[in-house]
Amino acid sequence: MTNQEEVKLLGFWVSPFVRRVEWALKLKGVEFEYIEEDVFNKSPLLLQLNPVHQKVPCLVYNDNKVISESFVILEFIDEIWKQNPLLPQDPHDRAKARFWAKFAEEKVFEGAWNALCSLGEEKERAVKLTIEAMEHIEGEMKRIDYFFGGESIGYLDIIMGWMAYWLPVFEEVGPIKILDPLRFPATIAWANRFLDHHVIKDNLPPRDKMIVYFHNRREVLSSISHGWLKI
Amino acid sequence: MTNQEEVKLLGFWVSPFVRRVEWALKLKGVEFEYIEEDVFNKSPLLLQLNPVHQKVPCLVYNDNKVISESFVILEFIDEIWKQNPLLPQDPHDRAKARFWAKFAEEKVFEGAWNALCSLGEEKERAVKLTIEAMEHIEGEMKRIDYFFGGESIGYLDIIMGWMAYWLPVFEEVGPIKILDPLRFPATIAWANRFLDHHVIKDNLPPRDKMIVYFHNRREVLSSISHGWLKI
Repeated sequence: MTNQEEVKLLGFWVSPFVRRVEWALKLKGVEFEYIEEDVFNKSPLLLQLNPVHQKVPCLVYNDNKVISESFVILEFIDEIWKQNPLLPQDPHDRAKARFWAKFAEEKVFEGAWNALCSLGEEKERAVKLTIEAMEHIEGEMKRIDYFFGGESIGYLDIIMGWMAYWLPVFEEVGPIKILDPLRFPATIAWANRFLDHHVIKDNLPPRDKMIVYFHNRREVLSSISHGWLKI
Repeated sequence: MTNQEEVKLLGFWVSPFVRRVEWALKLKGVEFEYIEEDVFNKSPLLLQLNPVHQKVPCLVYNDNKVISESFVILEFIDEIWKQNPLLPQDPHDRAKARFWAKFAEEKVFEGAWNALCSLGEEKERAVKLTIEAMEHIEGEMKRIDYFFGGESIGYLDIIMGWMAYWLPVFEEVGPIKILDPLRFPATIAWANRFLDHHVIKDNLPPRDKMIVYFHNRREVLSSISHGWLKI
């Protein structure tokens, strides 16, 4: 990083997608200015920078380069700052990391969010689908000694990091049960290692505020259909 | 590509996701063996190679490296075979390509598919959402002279290629109207250039068979909810 570089991140305190970007920048040692957005009352700055999605995270690099979508931002960060690589170097390992990232997002995150925000039979069905998807994640977790990035946190750890901290909150608020220790011991061991990393544990939202926030979101979203993915 | 390399692609004739991989390999000049799968009666080979998704496209590289998900496969292909690059070289341009690829897939493809397979008010709503998303794509199309890859077909052209050939079929079968020439002239001009490229025009499924196939799929899927994304 040269002295001329300037990095800004528009975020929202409780978003796991924003935290991914914060974690990645901090793991790389990149200095950045964090700007808190109110996602329920969007600022003119956000609307100007991200007119298509109007969503956070939104990374602004050297004032005129704007990148959104956490998956896309992580790839950008890994390409711009080569130190402490996030993605593996081997093309097949990279492909596997990208595959599991997409799988975890589409099957586990969306499943758990749907389970949180739905009721009755739909909730039961969402929990079941999420657990089935988690079985595949557990299989991958069993293959690693420490992190997906080896001894250091990598791309897939960052993508799945929400499972270590947000998922137990979803379970409490739901209430739902997904992370059964007998069923997912490797995932839970990984989650503990992840939360014990100094960059991660110093960059997490307060749990008590999260409980209140997601309780309120659940109340609002469970009363309307197609409510999920509006974290 | 060395002489030792062996590339197989498991596909299904009508899948736009499989065609992306075929186009990419052919644009790179990579020789591969194409194996047609019956996705309604999956082969033991597919179940063994892709136990998680059991889906095509499924790329097998040197017998033991299996990659699925068309977005992931395209990145892999671009990393393994450097000739005729698909993604731009600049990190911000790469990020923009990945952003629009995700947007086109989630908003336009899924919207159009949902419009094809739904009925009544849901169909009207899906058409409206798809057209709104297409407005953003049209804005990007206006910025390019020829292809997103410059004078040659690139990553984003391949990802959006289905709009040039599958979308008009969806419109006919739907019946729905999305590609209004007055509203989307740049997209339609791009689509014509895309279909005129020798690699593309020689690698498309027969339109008459597609009409029959998607008519049948629409009949089946419009009668059940959550039917989309089962192309």
